[in-house]
Amino acid sequence: MLQGKHGFALTPLTADKTTRLQRNAQYKKIEQADIDYFHSILPEESILEESSCPQDHYLSFLTDWYNLYRGSSAVVLLPTTTDQVLAILKYCNDHHIAVVPQSGNTSASGGSVPVFDEIVVSTKKMEKIRSFDPLSGALVCDAGCNLETLDTYLAQHGYQIPLDLPAKHLCRIGGNAATNAGGIRQMRFGNLHGSIMGLEVVLADGTVLDNLSTMRKDNTGYHLKNLFIGSEGTLGYITAVSIQAVRIRPAVNVLMIGFPSYDHVVQAYDLCKKRLSETISAFEVLDQDSMRCVKQVGFQVPEGSPFPISSDEAFYVVMETAGSIEEDEAKRVQNFLDELRSSDIATDGAIATTAEARESFWSWRTKLPPAIVQTGPHSIHFDISMPIPKLYQVVYDTRDWMNKQGIIGRDVVAVYGYGHVGDGNLHLTIPALIDSEELREKIDEFIYTWLTQYSGSVSAEHGIGLMKAPYLTYTKSLTMVNQMQRIKTMFDPNGILNPYKVFPQEHELLEGQAVKKRVQAARCGC
Amino acid sequence: MLQGKHGFALTPLTADKTTRLQRNAQYKKIEQADIDYFHSILPEESILEESSCPQDHYLSFLTDWYNLYRGSSAVVLLPTTTDQVLAILKYCNDHHIAVVPQSGNTSASGGSVPVFDEIVVSTKKMEKIRSFDPLSGALVCDAGCNLETLDTYLAQHGYQIPLDLPAKHLCRIGGNAATNAGGIRQMRFGNLHGSIMGLEVVLADGTVLDNLSTMRKDNTGYHLKNLFIGSEGTLGYITAVSIQAVRIRPAVNVLMIGFPSYDHVVQAYDLCKKRLSETISAFEVLDQDSMRCVKQVGFQVPEGSPFPISSDEAFYVVMETAGSIEEDEAKRVQNFLDELRSSDIATDGAIATTAEARESFWSWRTKLPPAIVQTGPHSIHFDISMPIPKLYQVVYDTRDWMNKQGIIGRDVVAVYGYGHVGDGNLHLTIPALIDSEELREKIDEFIYTWLTQYSGSVSAEHGIGLMKAPYLTYTKSLTMVNQMQRIKTMFDPNGILNPYKVFPQEHELLEGQAVKKRVQAARCGC
Repeated sequence: MLQGKHGFALTPLTADKTTRLQRNAQYKKIEQADIDYFHSILPEESILEESSCPQDHYLSFLTDWYNLYRGSSAVVLLPTTTDQVLAILKYCNDHHIAVVPQSGNTSASGGSVPVFDEIVVSTKKMEKIRSFDPLSGALVCDAGCNLETLDTYLAQHGYQIPLDLPAKHLCRIGGNAATNAGGIRQMRFGNLHGSIMGLEVVLADGTVLDNLSTMRKDNTGYHLKNLFIGSEGTLGYITAVSIQAVRIRPAVNVLMIGFPSYDHVVQAYDLCKKRLSETISAFEVLDQDSMRCVKQVGFQVPEGSPFPISSDEAFYVVMETAGSIEEDEAKRVQNFLDELRSSDIATDGAIATTAEARESFWSWRTKLPPAIVQTGPHSIHFDISMPIPKLYQVVYDTRDWMNKQGIIGRDVVAVYGYGHVGDGNLHLTIPALIDSEELREKIDEFIYTWLTQYSGSVSAEHGIGLMKAPYLTYTKSLTMVNQMQRIKTMFDPNGILNPYKVFPQEHELLEGQAVKKRVQAARCGC
Repeated sequence: MLQGKHGFALTPLTADKTTRLQRNAQYKKIEQADIDYFHSILPEESILEESSCPQDHYLSFLTDWYNLYRGSSAVVLLPTTTDQVLAILKYCNDHHIAVVPQSGNTSASGGSVPVFDEIVVSTKKMEKIRSFDPLSGALVCDAGCNLETLDTYLAQHGYQIPLDLPAKHLCRIGGNAATNAGGIRQMRFGNLHGSIMGLEVVLADGTVLDNLSTMRKDNTGYHLKNLFIGSEGTLGYITAVSIQAVRIRPAVNVLMIGFPSYDHVVQAYDLCKKRLSETISAFEVLDQDSMRCVKQVGFQVPEGSPFPISSDEAFYVVMETAGSIEEDEAKRVQNFLDELRSSDIATDGAIATTAEARESFWSWRTKLPPAIVQTGPHSIHFDISMPIPKLYQVVYDTRDWMNKQGIIGRDVVAVYGYGHVGDGNLHLTIPALIDSEELREKIDEFIYTWLTQYSGSVSAEHGIGLMKAPYLTYTKSLTMVNQMQRIKTMFDPNGILNPYKVFPQEHELLEGQAVKKRVQAARCGC
């Protein structure tokens, strides 16, 4: 039997299980003549066809990282140049062929795989570094460059990419830009709207926006690049990125700290920003269940490393600072930990003293997503953003509601809560034992309705993709969505780029608004 | 006689001296009925009319900071609420009345005053702080809040705005957002695309985009706010801003360092980024002539402070670091200065040891723009962006060219070069003795053509406004400008918002492209 990702059974075709979408008949079904055309403009190795490609390899382009979505695509194209992308899109636009721009295919929202029969156009063969300036740190590279590879390249020059993700070995910079990826160190480096200096983008009609500025400051007209950052491939195909790399700070400290409650975590965060604001680079929280999950799955690296804290805590924080002078940083971090302990904010804590220990401390956090995925074949995943003090309450309330409904233990394994406290960004992962759209929708609605009370975001960093499209108006107003629609129509009038993604269906738009009104009315008592 | 800014004679009406523009007849001329309408929707104190307002006060809305441009406007409106802005714009859009959105009116590109008879709609009476969260640092405030006032407010909570400008006592946050203002500490805080979390914007037709998110991470659809950041009031009227304030680092060090050449400045910058990357917050260069100018005008504050360096240097850098622990920071900065001296990179240098000394060191930089303006009644100002090593060469080449042309001494006082080296951003200010459009155009063309060789930007941080509109295509491609035009038409189909700004005239578009082609052909020898 063919396997899906993480060793699970291959997920069924999205087309067969989705109830909210139908294939849009305006898109042409691919014929042999289309494939012949692609052969006329691309070298042999840039075209994969289902009939002549190892099935596992072919499926890797059609299924998402969580093994939740699967599309079918008559052909997968892997152009190597911007001109090839131009030729592909122009042809697809002229013939109304729907396209999924795909980069590392690590989307956590089902945004990077076909829903029906859209063709995949992958960045995987666009991997050239175009230029790097070691004085300014300006890096210009193809969209298909892998994030880890870029970091390895930059490290030779004392630089790093201002973005770090657990999926860095898999993801690619074009996809990072297209989804405005956040990750572990956003609290230090800020978002990609701040650090990307320019993009090269091919529009649906083949127009190339040559905006690869390497200048930190360039106020010459509208900052069009920002429209494409976070547009999830629906406005244009990113072929190259210019990004401001940052200097590596060599004096790195990693801590693991235990806390008796989430309120104590928030106090520690506030103190940390006061004492260590110039060097703090990560402040990641894991709840007790999450940490137990990593321990059970036994994913820690290097293998056999002891767990840094002896007691069993309600919450753990993995924290990192990065400065220039080892002695100074070590002292600052030790003082901070002492202050946490003496003021009874933290129960226990440890500082990694070797490179191996730092890696091991980090692994308890970075190995969590794959560990959770192992515990149930159908992960239901949330990536919400909210005011920090309220951030964790949603986990308690979801567990209570699920217990009352008899969902935990029967339909789902558990509710895991973890994430980037410093950014007000929590992930809830709920591994499910059954593959049920109904269950997913029920949980979605509970959590997104809860969130609406605090004007939270249904997607902090993973984007909307396919998964969260029905819930866009839980966060964004109808006015905002209308303006987004106008921009979409302007850049992609035939709607060939990543269809079915980001935008809700008509009735979902209204439902989202209705929920928001109801929740807000209940809050103000009117 | 009525005076213009800085004690100079009032500049003539732009309409009388411009040769490149004519009033667009599609815009309605204001009639009494229009003014009556404004009276029906606004309180008395929100409407200024030329006939009933002290002339100096009225003129302050119509002339720019450099005393280069003057418009006429039958009325100046000062709404206090978003709903009033909505009503004003809707009426103006329905009646084709052209509008200049104006905030602190400190634009250095003539972007915030009328060219002909557009009416000014000022943010000056919108000054409410709407909310501040001392844990996350999220500040939401009206567009008319003054930058210095906001900083004073935030300082009580241990925070500051991630933006600092010499004009902070005058400028307002809405204008900062609309122009994507850069300033002194951008190298530390990044640009406003990174730190602004949300905007409230009224579109030309009165649609209100309610996008005042306070979340650091919110990937729910297109990041529309970024389109308005840097659009210079041509796409919508910003009524409120949500911005990520940053913690104040209390251990501040300010240095002044002297260098024998610009190459030595570049070496010092590189070393500084290596040694002090987590705390460096400013690295400002001034050339010898600039420093002599401040000394001559005698603007230094506090009055009578001695100049920190005994020798007369070719270049000066005013540098700032901000960290958490005084002792550590002092040591780091001293070590850095010692290394600069021992490696013969710097000739001389001093560290300010008191708050007064820090203020005095800084004043040599911040008082430079007003000092230069004093030396000649008609400043010609440049704000260019380029690769750091090439940055200063333009000053030498401009001086050479001007000497050969006999311009220096006859038409202009001198060429001053200074700016934000760390951001690759140089200001050239050329105080002129005559008010000549011909002279201005001649100098513009020399410098912008020079710049084109290195694919530099004609505006690093001041925007395009009116001043640089003819030169937009020296930096941006025609394709990019075409896409900008489409977006402008989409958001403002009647073109009522800040007309004549940002976009070149048809023939200028082509001229800019021709210059670029010619320069690039000469470089590649083809």
